[in-house]
Amino acid sequence: MRELESVVPVILSGGSGTRLWPMSTTDRPKQFLALTAAETMLQLTVQRIGGAEGCAPAIIVANAAHGDFVEQQLATIGCHPQHVILEPAARNTAPAIALAAIAAGGSDQPLLVMPSDHVIADVDAFRAAIAAAMPIVADGWLATFGITPDHPATGFGWIKIGETLGAGVNRAERFVEKPPLDKAEAMLASGDHAWNGGIFMFRADAYLDALGRFAPDILAAAQAAMDKADRQGRRLLPDGEAFAASPSNSIDYAVMERAERVAVVPVAMGWSDVGSWDALYDVSARDALGNSATGDVVLQDTSNCLVRSDGNVTVALHGVSDLIVVASGSTVMILPRGSSQEVKALSALAGERRAG
Amino acid sequence: MRELESVVPVILSGGSGTRLWPMSTTDRPKQFLALTAAETMLQLTVQRIGGAEGCAPAIIVANAAHGDFVEQQLATIGCHPQHVILEPAARNTAPAIALAAIAAGGSDQPLLVMPSDHVIADVDAFRAAIAAAMPIVADGWLATFGITPDHPATGFGWIKIGETLGAGVNRAERFVEKPPLDKAEAMLASGDHAWNGGIFMFRADAYLDALGRFAPDILAAAQAAMDKADRQGRRLLPDGEAFAASPSNSIDYAVMERAERVAVVPVAMGWSDVGSWDALYDVSARDALGNSATGDVVLQDTSNCLVRSDGNVTVALHGVSDLIVVASGSTVMILPRGSSQEVKALSALAGERRAG
Repeated sequence: MRELESVVPVILSGGSGTRLWPMSTTDRPKQFLALTAAETMLQLTVQRIGGAEGCAPAIIVANAAHGDFVEQQLATIGCHPQHVILEPAARNTAPAIALAAIAAGGSDQPLLVMPSDHVIADVDAFRAAIAAAMPIVADGWLATFGITPDHPATGFGWIKIGETLGAGVNRAERFVEKPPLDKAEAMLASGDHAWNGGIFMFRADAYLDALGRFAPDILAAAQAAMDKADRQGRRLLPDGEAFAASPSNSIDYAVMERAERVAVVPVAMGWSDVGSWDALYDVSARDALGNSATGDVVLQDTSNCLVRSDGNVTVALHGVSDLIVVASGSTVMILPRGSSQEVKALSALAGERRAG
Repeated sequence: MRELESVVPVILSGGSGTRLWPMSTTDRPKQFLALTAAETMLQLTVQRIGGAEGCAPAIIVANAAHGDFVEQQLATIGCHPQHVILEPAARNTAPAIALAAIAAGGSDQPLLVMPSDHVIADVDAFRAAIAAAMPIVADGWLATFGITPDHPATGFGWIKIGETLGAGVNRAERFVEKPPLDKAEAMLASGDHAWNGGIFMFRADAYLDALGRFAPDILAAAQAAMDKADRQGRRLLPDGEAFAASPSNSIDYAVMERAERVAVVPVAMGWSDVGSWDALYDVSARDALGNSATGDVVLQDTSNCLVRSDGNVTVALHGVSDLIVVASGSTVMILPRGSSQEVKALSALAGERRAG
């Protein structure tokens, strides 16, 4: 797909969530873990665009603490990013993407902004959606990919799909923040709403122009931070003081919900943000008894369980069903499937105990 | 209790079962683990007879591989055994007790033979039973303690309680091997049957006499092994070749079921052989939610679980009930309460995986 070659992947690796505790931690968040394949989420994200030809020369924006992880993981798969931008502070996605757009030269080159820790099972569908977005992006629109919903999710933002702008591309009529269940059910039933998957495509200049109009403080801080950036090979270290002056805001709030020429590209591509152990179970390959087990795991008369071990301990299960069991480092976590939203509280309790 | 002072405790530590895998292993069987208290099962067994005055000078019969464990664990609690007899081979209880009876001098001194890995919650009841047995033992009878049954156990031998021989002492009318359930139920209902708990009391000479009559090969082998024993301080190492010639047999089969003057002392003393994780749960102190948790364990919305961690990993549970979770060394085992008989198969499967 020739058009893809002109696109610069911008991969956002700033996340530090611990929703997959005890495997993901602040020191080693989800994008650096191999959760669905032998490759880590970051590696899969980079390979997704490069395809058979290899990796596109991406721009990675990462937490300064994770620079080594990023470079090691990309080197392992033979990928060489254009830039690894190490954020001196976390300021959410709008400033992070501004750093990348400036590093890309601020030209009319299209950027494809992707979180580093999502699953996309149907890469061909993703690529087709990118191709569909290309004309309108070239024309200066800001595009977002609208994930075809399969349940009334209350944890995602939604987008109302408006008038057709071209083949497979529509106007984004309205952004809806995380909705209550009844509203989510209504949107699912309507057939003209999609999830906001946090994947965007636009020309670097179009994004910076929009940012200058709707969030000039962010643009100014990002520009100042990049003007005084320290360059170490592929690494770019924006000036800490200048970047710290930026408001913290998401691209959705700061730009997408305010700009006028915003498009949505509806796509069904087996997407998941893998935002919980339950979500990981949903996208994982499973054996005949419904188990997804990887690592040093022994199962006997066990069904419908998600079991992960990083190899520090052997996990042996007998006679259980519908459990999530995760052994990582010096922690083993056990809870029923369907309750993985409790991981945060449980990890806090375990942390308190260790500190206490 | 003055009579106790004349009794020599003989503690059998030859067991190498792995029914409490992954915590108990061949290298470190159950008697060397602290399962019900800060003390190990062996330490509790030794202290049970010593009482406030300290430890009686016991004779320990142990697997040769475990000599250091035995001596360290007794030294830690300030107990000094008369002898630590290290068996050069496992030949079951009849030969093991013969070694101890010979080491004790083969005199008319009463021996109290106890497994090293049982729980006795009501030590006063046990001591009262010992006192009750004392006259008839002095008269040359072989006594066994008959545990008052509280369920139709199919995993224990049973004893039919016969005519009264004295206060709290009866003739052992019949020994019944591990019965089928209907027979166990009938014996429980009868009210005149007790479990064979594997605890015995007799004069050393009475045991050796009986052994000479009913199992002369065992007596001859034990005697020969002791004649050529190597003595290293408290340690006695019977001759390996001589002892290997002994048939392997239990005291029940070899002696108790055959001898004529055999008494049973019925006693309800909170006894358990802790033969499984379920059995341990039954005898463990539990919190208000029915959990028995020790070690590095974090519980949230969890009930009726047995959770053990040796500290190598933190075990964090949320929202589960009626599970057995044991983390020991590099293994974590998870199974539902009520199925701990599956531990053997599960440990074999885990062992195969590691070897494969």
